[in-house]
Amino acid sequence: MSRFLAKKYRTLDAYVPGEQPRDKRYIKLNTNEFPYPPAPDVIAAVDADVISDLRLYSDPTAKNLKESLAKYYGVGAENVFVSNGSDESLNFAFACFFEDGVAFADLTYGFYSVFADLYGIDAKIIPLNDDFSIVPEEYFGLDRGAVIANPNAPTGKALPLSDIERIVASNPDRVIVVDEAYVDFGGESAVPLTKKYDNLLVCMTYSKSRGMAGARLGFAIGNAELIADLELMKYSTNPYNLDSLALRMGAAALTDSSKAYYEEKVSEVIKVREDTAEKLKSLGVEVLPSKANFLFAKLPNISGGEAYIKLRERGILVRHFSKERISDYLRISIGTADDMAALVDAVVEIIKE
Amino acid sequence: MSRFLAKKYRTLDAYVPGEQPRDKRYIKLNTNEFPYPPAPDVIAAVDADVISDLRLYSDPTAKNLKESLAKYYGVGAENVFVSNGSDESLNFAFACFFEDGVAFADLTYGFYSVFADLYGIDAKIIPLNDDFSIVPEEYFGLDRGAVIANPNAPTGKALPLSDIERIVASNPDRVIVVDEAYVDFGGESAVPLTKKYDNLLVCMTYSKSRGMAGARLGFAIGNAELIADLELMKYSTNPYNLDSLALRMGAAALTDSSKAYYEEKVSEVIKVREDTAEKLKSLGVEVLPSKANFLFAKLPNISGGEAYIKLRERGILVRHFSKERISDYLRISIGTADDMAALVDAVVEIIKE
Repeated sequence: MSRFLAKKYRTLDAYVPGEQPRDKRYIKLNTNEFPYPPAPDVIAAVDADVISDLRLYSDPTAKNLKESLAKYYGVGAENVFVSNGSDESLNFAFACFFEDGVAFADLTYGFYSVFADLYGIDAKIIPLNDDFSIVPEEYFGLDRGAVIANPNAPTGKALPLSDIERIVASNPDRVIVVDEAYVDFGGESAVPLTKKYDNLLVCMTYSKSRGMAGARLGFAIGNAELIADLELMKYSTNPYNLDSLALRMGAAALTDSSKAYYEEKVSEVIKVREDTAEKLKSLGVEVLPSKANFLFAKLPNISGGEAYIKLRERGILVRHFSKERISDYLRISIGTADDMAALVDAVVEIIKE
Repeated sequence: MSRFLAKKYRTLDAYVPGEQPRDKRYIKLNTNEFPYPPAPDVIAAVDADVISDLRLYSDPTAKNLKESLAKYYGVGAENVFVSNGSDESLNFAFACFFEDGVAFADLTYGFYSVFADLYGIDAKIIPLNDDFSIVPEEYFGLDRGAVIANPNAPTGKALPLSDIERIVASNPDRVIVVDEAYVDFGGESAVPLTKKYDNLLVCMTYSKSRGMAGARLGFAIGNAELIADLELMKYSTNPYNLDSLALRMGAAALTDSSKAYYEEKVSEVIKVREDTAEKLKSLGVEVLPSKANFLFAKLPNISGGEAYIKLRERGILVRHFSKERISDYLRISIGTADDMAALVDAVVEIIKE
């Protein structure tokens, strides 16, 4: 920290991303990446001609990508905001909509508390149930906005759409942000509700179910006025927030052919997740029911920290959070069937020790 | 604007980027883009394998790109911050370093006043001289930080390095940000001074002299503690701010072969700039001496607004600012020799009318 840093940021605890070690090749199950490459249309979208055109600025209005997303999700282009990862959508939503405070779960995406700190927003932390469920009623009639990851991370548990609607309906003068980073793996999207409620913003990403984490593409869907607020923040910070290649690849990931590709691969991830959960449970591992591309699991007779280290020694990276309530759990991303077979084998060994 | 938008942002005037019309093919001299494609090494850096790897998150530490930039500029990797365009570096610098206020010129990059508004920072506007020069003495012993575009935009005029050093040395307890977006076209970089002064931050971009505006790549060089502050902001807003392709292409633009390519192309831009300036002056156009990849020019007997429209009708886009002091001027980016010949022909016609 320099002696020049603004006082308000001196106590800021930044987000800590999952490790990306380069020391050796790991089976990487720690950052919920997709185990498959982007669709063939995405790969075909970038060639030498496209790269040559990088001398020109990217389209700040992201017209083509917005229209493609709008068509895909059955909304208008004015209902779509596109961002440099969904973190940027969430960042702007915190800046715009939570001046009276924000509510979120004690166990959820770690960035929400960072954004609250960054903007000096009062955060009301609502503990999950003993079974790690969100209790919808605790979000009714809030004196502030809320952000709900659905499915939630790191638990993988999902709320039904009816519960999301009850929360949104009971807070007509507060913005409810639903973070659907993992929705394609079994959740119910709240996008259709954005036509009925002007206080609902749904954030999504290309990083999980579209295998494009490295392309930094996220988006948000909501009432046109909410979207206009996010655009105001974008044009006040970084108007060209998406590069030309990401804009092209993002649209290419929405073609009919890409849609079929991703549906097949997502089904595979879901199948591997269910198979892995069954195998782990048969070994005595506690596994939460997951609607995401990861499992939240607790090995018998070993702490989460120790289990993490023993897996890492065996070349398998998972994510461990030291937060008290979940320090015995591991978040395990769903890789290929081979990746998960290696994980199960390693768990068998660790349990035997 | 929605009814939910935070009060402090309701009066925000966002930045207005130069137009990117898609209605027809223009000779595009309005956003200071490079007239040549990125270096061959940059184009070769992205292939189908690299795009397949997009399923993985990009490296949030940007290790390879930082090391490449550090080597290129003769500093340490800890002295380099990389960002999604230089706007992101500037954004974070405003957030971090200007809580006591900021000084900048009345005629300079329009985003500085947007950032000041965004963060509620008191801005002291220091008018340029009658000849559109910065008067260094007016930046001595400030009660706040400052940001200086050098060369300045839209004027193209540059301060010698000795003046920058006098400003930095006279404000030892204030951060001076020098925005060197255009430095490669004839300015003197302040990067060497960052080793001597802990209060100097130099911001640069790949958008101008490296022909990569569409890749969204910027960086900042300074004392390691200043850089750590920018990293804190990055990890509190968007840790994966650069995508994997931009990280690769950014490093590829710094190879010896790329360096030779860019040096040749930049020399060409400078030569075309000087030729164009001479031709315009011979037609009675007032042209400021430029160290950037654009000219700031005033046609005889016609307002800037009218000249802009007449050029646009002839398929040539330039930038016009309605600000009173410069409303009779046009900012004309330097394109290829053919582009500029077309511009000169159009100016001849317009003057004759």
